[in-house]
Amino acid sequence: MSETLGRQHISRQFDSELEAMHHRVLAMGGLVEQQISDALRGLIDNDVALSTQVIDNDARVNRHEVAIDEVCMQIIVRRQPTAGDLRLVLAVIKTINDLERIGDQATTVARKAISLSAMERPHNHYLEIEHLGERVRLMLHHALDAFARLDASAALAVVEEDAVIDHEFDGIMRQQVTMMMEDPRTIRRCLDVMWTARALERIGDHAENICEYLIYLVKGKDVRHTSPEELAEIARDRRQ
Amino acid sequence: MSETLGRQHISRQFDSELEAMHHRVLAMGGLVEQQISDALRGLIDNDVALSTQVIDNDARVNRHEVAIDEVCMQIIVRRQPTAGDLRLVLAVIKTINDLERIGDQATTVARKAISLSAMERPHNHYLEIEHLGERVRLMLHHALDAFARLDASAALAVVEEDAVIDHEFDGIMRQQVTMMMEDPRTIRRCLDVMWTARALERIGDHAENICEYLIYLVKGKDVRHTSPEELAEIARDRRQ
Repeated sequence: MSETLGRQHISRQFDSELEAMHHRVLAMGGLVEQQISDALRGLIDNDVALSTQVIDNDARVNRHEVAIDEVCMQIIVRRQPTAGDLRLVLAVIKTINDLERIGDQATTVARKAISLSAMERPHNHYLEIEHLGERVRLMLHHALDAFARLDASAALAVVEEDAVIDHEFDGIMRQQVTMMMEDPRTIRRCLDVMWTARALERIGDHAENICEYLIYLVKGKDVRHTSPEELAEIARDRRQ
Repeated sequence: MSETLGRQHISRQFDSELEAMHHRVLAMGGLVEQQISDALRGLIDNDVALSTQVIDNDARVNRHEVAIDEVCMQIIVRRQPTAGDLRLVLAVIKTINDLERIGDQATTVARKAISLSAMERPHNHYLEIEHLGERVRLMLHHALDAFARLDASAALAVVEEDAVIDHEFDGIMRQQVTMMMEDPRTIRRCLDVMWTARALERIGDHAENICEYLIYLVKGKDVRHTSPEELAEIARDRRQ
């Protein structure tokens, strides 16, 4: 961890505690990523058992959050970290909250997949949802990757991915509205598709949040609610 | 603050810092509550200027979050709080995150109100949304009230309000689907109403989160992801 963070603590024990915390976040992130994949597979393959499994697995995601939260609190109380280390711990507390909410969105996708399994399937087998979902899963993967390396430039690139996701989401919304109007018998199915797309789009927002905490951590600047232009400037500024 | 928290710190300065932090959260909460009221008024009165004002005001909500976050970090670094005080500070950090997201949902309501202002209005002038919105605003008000008094029993009562909100939300969804199917010309309007209802329902979830942090703070038990029955038991248990 000292290497990753580019600094060394007097106490090796503290270093290894921070490292363990960091790894636990990445493990939780891996689980959440798997939940997204499985939720998408459940929908695309019309596999209700897999969708049900995603819903059941959400309790595991939640337990990760509660456990890591506790570890973070213990570190702050026992180690009385400096501002820099504290920033890392607080970034972790926020990151796992977003990961937990991503897990919730994955279960929304799974629930909608179960609802859709009872309806006639469209000819394209929800290709547009598969596409959006894969893009979102990849965005989260990149965010976790940036977090693993504490890489602010990589985090900025992830934030920029979100615009593409919003664009695809808008396209799906327009397409579904048109379909509903042309054939009102598809209304229920279209609504489920819209809620699914919305859940995926929200995952993109949470991945963006994670990257913003990371940029704050590395650059010491709070970049939430910052325009894309200012953000790019901050992340490219290597002087810290 | 020492009175509110039921304990006294050696440093009076620390007490007043905690108190100031607590008041800032309540001030932010008051602003967010106003944003919900205004967003609803904008929709019900078809007042586009007010809806636009809600969207513009969101930047103020965001600035509150960033500023309180910074105060919390300073308190931890400078005061090295004990586990109990740290729990309060961490609860504040989480609470303001939920308040900020409630602010986002208020702007969603405002955006949909602007979109709806260009469409024919229904006979009941969105009465069901007004009703749901008022209930949600009240739930947030009760949550902030419980937070002001650090009252876990009051917080539990708020958590229980959420079931009523979910029930009303489901009713609106069913009603809108029926309307769309009966008259496909209403599809765009119904979709906007559904997104509005969804934003309000999410506000209820965030108010619930705030109460759960509070119960954790007072009772020392993490009650997120806990069944309603267990929750009631924890909040009623006065022994701590």
